[in-house]
Amino acid sequence: MNRKVAVIGVGNSKFGKRDDVTIKELAWESVKEALEDANLAQKDIDITVIGSTAYRGTEIYPAPPVSEYCGLIGKSPIRVEAACATGSSAAFTAINLIASGLADIVMAIGVDKMTEVDTSTSLAIGGRGGNYYWEFHMYGTTFPTYYALYATRHMALFGTTEEDMALASVKAHKYASLNEKAHFRNKITVEDVLKSRVISWPIKLLDSSPISDGSATVIFASEEKVRELKIDTPIWVKGIGYSSDTSYIAARGEWVGLEAARDAAAKAYKMAKISPLDIEYATVHDCFSIAEIMAYEDLGFVEKGKGAELLREGQTEKDGKVAVNLFGGLKAKGHPLGATGLSMIYEVTKQLREEAGPVQHSFKRYVALTHNVGGTGHYAYVMIFNR
Amino acid sequence: MNRKVAVIGVGNSKFGKRDDVTIKELAWESVKEALEDANLAQKDIDITVIGSTAYRGTEIYPAPPVSEYCGLIGKSPIRVEAACATGSSAAFTAINLIASGLADIVMAIGVDKMTEVDTSTSLAIGGRGGNYYWEFHMYGTTFPTYYALYATRHMALFGTTEEDMALASVKAHKYASLNEKAHFRNKITVEDVLKSRVISWPIKLLDSSPISDGSATVIFASEEKVRELKIDTPIWVKGIGYSSDTSYIAARGEWVGLEAARDAAAKAYKMAKISPLDIEYATVHDCFSIAEIMAYEDLGFVEKGKGAELLREGQTEKDGKVAVNLFGGLKAKGHPLGATGLSMIYEVTKQLREEAGPVQHSFKRYVALTHNVGGTGHYAYVMIFNR
Repeated sequence: MNRKVAVIGVGNSKFGKRDDVTIKELAWESVKEALEDANLAQKDIDITVIGSTAYRGTEIYPAPPVSEYCGLIGKSPIRVEAACATGSSAAFTAINLIASGLADIVMAIGVDKMTEVDTSTSLAIGGRGGNYYWEFHMYGTTFPTYYALYATRHMALFGTTEEDMALASVKAHKYASLNEKAHFRNKITVEDVLKSRVISWPIKLLDSSPISDGSATVIFASEEKVRELKIDTPIWVKGIGYSSDTSYIAARGEWVGLEAARDAAAKAYKMAKISPLDIEYATVHDCFSIAEIMAYEDLGFVEKGKGAELLREGQTEKDGKVAVNLFGGLKAKGHPLGATGLSMIYEVTKQLREEAGPVQHSFKRYVALTHNVGGTGHYAYVMIFNR
Repeated sequence: MNRKVAVIGVGNSKFGKRDDVTIKELAWESVKEALEDANLAQKDIDITVIGSTAYRGTEIYPAPPVSEYCGLIGKSPIRVEAACATGSSAAFTAINLIASGLADIVMAIGVDKMTEVDTSTSLAIGGRGGNYYWEFHMYGTTFPTYYALYATRHMALFGTTEEDMALASVKAHKYASLNEKAHFRNKITVEDVLKSRVISWPIKLLDSSPISDGSATVIFASEEKVRELKIDTPIWVKGIGYSSDTSYIAARGEWVGLEAARDAAAKAYKMAKISPLDIEYATVHDCFSIAEIMAYEDLGFVEKGKGAELLREGQTEKDGKVAVNLFGGLKAKGHPLGATGLSMIYEVTKQLREEAGPVQHSFKRYVALTHNVGGTGHYAYVMIFNR
């Protein structure tokens, strides 16, 4: 990258079923927080990039009304989408607009209002993100089933159990109970998960992330601006990795990990010139509990097949070897598609600044990572940050 | 911008009602042509950016299947959207991914298959791009009416006539008749336009661009790669301007031009360090005939109110002072939203390389411009190229 880029402001709305706001008001919640956090006004922003999947709400072209409502007219030339990794695609674009020299301060806004359509419609929309003709149309496959195929293969090859997967959900709810902005704040037990309704075996209701409304905003700046604005604790972008894969699950080479996530991670580690074992904090894309276990492996925290061990040993808890998702993860913090990737950067920024309150992890090297997957690895982004 | 970026390959599918292909096959038509034009294979591409509005077809997440079909797995992390300026938003992103230093060769693919839904549904989807609650929902305003409001105001203030507007459509069809890839290849007269069905007075059917299927692809490269690949005639990106505006027409300050287009043009001229009168060739966003007249003025080719004079005097014809839309424009070449902005870059590249055959304009300075508007100026991009 030609210029160093840092995070200088972050905001995160309350996630959940947000019938109380329009998509514009929902976006503003995080935009306002991010502007205040960076001590900037709208006039200071050069460009905004809006990440939104926009398939489940009344505003199917959300960028202009969101931009207008947030006082950003003239600065919002683009909406980006990468399914569940939409938020990271907005960050990716924003970072490059600064590194290119075109802009000095760029705001990435991620927002989706997903509860405006009923759950079955929402699942059908999600299912169309796979191979439409051969998988959704002919077999009715939707996203829980895609991940169920991965889970059963992981169980068969590596002995991963339903109890192992349940541990990911239990951890997510434990930490979400400490996060005022989380969608779900109730604690759950392994037994609760195992007894919950089967969606697509072995995936049960409590193995699954919810359909959420929410927004998250990140303000990025060039090194020159960081100095000029005398930012206290800039959080630097050290590595960005991206990849993509076929949406046709039957054409994948294996079903125990996501090739796109591994490819994105390799690119990010290479750019940051670090190894997986340098990561002290990670947000991983736990859309289903098996996805958290696969993420540990795809990111190189452990070798393939051993992801569940990290959960069993508590290594991904606060102050563990690599703390993961201490704000509650997609599972319990919530998963508004456009916001998720930026909410991960919000979380990593709060952690690296040591502003994470009851869930503050203790750092030695101050190196953290975001792992955001679109679909079942149709898209993947891995980004590395330090302070 | 931190690095010089050039166009090194372009492709454009046949535009029209393309029932003969899927969106993937449609994309491949222009991807294949662009790869052959640049003498590259898929392995040489670092990243692709896919521009598609994706609202009118069966594939609502088109990027993964398009990417897979075109042999670009692993390289397609993002879909971008900016309504009718979607193609330019893909170019904007691609150019920045090179200028940032992240990539050396980036492909921007623009594709939309818009005829898979009926025209009334398509208009309704378009209408929702305005202010949903106050304009579409309450008054049923769709895009022809938005532009009709601009047209009547332009007529009232400046004496622009229905005949003047008709001249833009006649010019578009004249040149499209020479373009094998155009949606419509029939010549029309001023009388044909005036007698055609009124859609929203003063806009008639033949003042309006069609709903088209199509794709266009542009391959960009860094200066280093241009040298390494020994590209014969690189077409350099000299200026990129972008802007956005409210989608709430009633909140606009005036109705005789698009503020976003003027803002984007000012940014592009400033970056390119040239004046409007340096432009010898332009593609302008003639979604309706009045839009072409307003574009001449918003781009500074003439002062506000005098756009129609350029048409009456034939100044925007081949070998005129500034030739405009010699491939047929949105009106007759067609307007597949995701493709349009990239098709404009295809056109400008062919012209600057002097590969435009029967419609080759004669250049002195070899400076050309693209002007691509999303909605009624919700988005605008102006880009300047030279050889």
